[in-house]
Amino acid sequence: MRRLLLIPALALIAAAPKPPVTPSEIIAAAPESAWQTIPADDLLVMNLKKGGRIVIQLAPGFAPVHVANIRALAKAQWWDKAAIYRVQDNYVVQWGKNESTDPLPAAVVAKPPAEYARPTEGLAIHPLGYPDAYAPGAGFAGGWPIGYDSKSGTANLVHCYGYVGVGRDLDPDTGTGGELYAVIGHAPRHLDRNIAVVGRVISGIEAMSSLPRGTEALGFYKERTQDVPIASVRLASDIPAGERPSFQYMDTNSAAFADYVRARANRKDDFFIRPAGGVDLCNASVPIRRPPAD
Amino acid sequence: MRRLLLIPALALIAAAPKPPVTPSEIIAAAPESAWQTIPADDLLVMNLKKGGRIVIQLAPGFAPVHVANIRALAKAQWWDKAAIYRVQDNYVVQWGKNESTDPLPAAVVAKPPAEYARPTEGLAIHPLGYPDAYAPGAGFAGGWPIGYDSKSGTANLVHCYGYVGVGRDLDPDTGTGGELYAVIGHAPRHLDRNIAVVGRVISGIEAMSSLPRGTEALGFYKERTQDVPIASVRLASDIPAGERPSFQYMDTNSAAFADYVRARANRKDDFFIRPAGGVDLCNASVPIRRPPAD
Repeated sequence: MRRLLLIPALALIAAAPKPPVTPSEIIAAAPESAWQTIPADDLLVMNLKKGGRIVIQLAPGFAPVHVANIRALAKAQWWDKAAIYRVQDNYVVQWGKNESTDPLPAAVVAKPPAEYARPTEGLAIHPLGYPDAYAPGAGFAGGWPIGYDSKSGTANLVHCYGYVGVGRDLDPDTGTGGELYAVIGHAPRHLDRNIAVVGRVISGIEAMSSLPRGTEALGFYKERTQDVPIASVRLASDIPAGERPSFQYMDTNSAAFADYVRARANRKDDFFIRPAGGVDLCNASVPIRRPPAD
Repeated sequence: MRRLLLIPALALIAAAPKPPVTPSEIIAAAPESAWQTIPADDLLVMNLKKGGRIVIQLAPGFAPVHVANIRALAKAQWWDKAAIYRVQDNYVVQWGKNESTDPLPAAVVAKPPAEYARPTEGLAIHPLGYPDAYAPGAGFAGGWPIGYDSKSGTANLVHCYGYVGVGRDLDPDTGTGGELYAVIGHAPRHLDRNIAVVGRVISGIEAMSSLPRGTEALGFYKERTQDVPIASVRLASDIPAGERPSFQYMDTNSAAFADYVRARANRKDDFFIRPAGGVDLCNASVPIRRPPAD
């Protein structure tokens, strides 16, 4: 009899929803309202000749002139004969083309303003809640990790793994956007507010991070034959609707995101013995997913 | 006449030693007394079959039983038919061998204690001087970056880029040291105090970080044919003196190191417009060099 009695009890237990505990469980359980679809105009799709497709989400809210330049360069198919020519271990992968021999399209602003930070006004900031070595405040706004300073009222995108910045020469040249790099190592946060961050790789970074490292100073490839040719770079909005990729990011002001950050800071998976009780900005990556099938 | 007068003045300026300003200038200018030679018994030299030599500095001061196991495994040439079988992007490269089919040498302690932290007593700590999201205190001791808690009197090695930890199953198994991993992405500091950190890659990490990423869950290679075979793993002390590598680390209690951390936090290279005024523990890597030629 006991055995029989146990059956309904077990069934009840199985039916009771177990609250999500781990970061991945929280992501999986997040309601549809916690997800924002990325506009196709904010997705840059880069195909390597030897295979490998990298998708970059642009951040027009932080670097509007540089992002406009990047869109113009993609529309002009300017990168179609460009290459990756620098891979520095624990630092960056960099690509582009010689701007002096390959003139920029007319729509490109040659000397963009220094979009290294923007006003905090207009940003709904979700504070990280843990100290940051690089900024008075650390948090998230509009789906992006930011450093901010309430006194000066400024906020900046940060250099986390996979984040994309604009190569530049010395001040006051901020770079056009024709040369870009992606972080492939520990977050080089000292670059924050010194370079325009224009977006992040949200898919396919392994096609760049696993490339052979350059042996010249700063990881430049020694021979041009080592360069990794780029087949094409397009905005998703310029790719036929049936073929373009689509992604969503988690709303950084949603309850699910707050739960996610808390879970990243206090890991309770079976594996963890001592939750850290803290997390750094670049270890609480904003969740990205493909939209669920209709 | 003015032109002539200028010559001695310029010569004087050229002769006056310019104080080192950038992190690399400070490293180059550090006196011999700021450098410590790593004992040959603390260097693990791993050769990949397809080429690539990785040198790991062991940390016996933090995980003595695990390090003793690793030395015993190297002496028994236990890893000579081992392989890298996991490469997870922005996380770890992992290698080892099936411990159930390849029994461990007798000298290996099968169930080492949980060497996740050690007493701060006996450590001369140089505080980082900037906040840390993961530990009440962050700093350096004996050439290593540490998190520490003055209240509990404990300190732990941290998971920075290139740091090596011991793969383990769920608690209370701490792992023997037969399976190791190295960090190849943003510092996964949530693993601190949950895993035994036993050292760091000080040379050749690009032979691991540029490997193709595994496509199975957690970055495991799908097919055993994808595994990257290891030719040999030896202690430098077991390599003939003329062939063994030698390295030095910067004494983390030296004046040069204090200058170096300050410079990392306040970059004044021509490139930098706004020094961060801070640096995180894993962005102030302890400088490593080959000993100068006699």
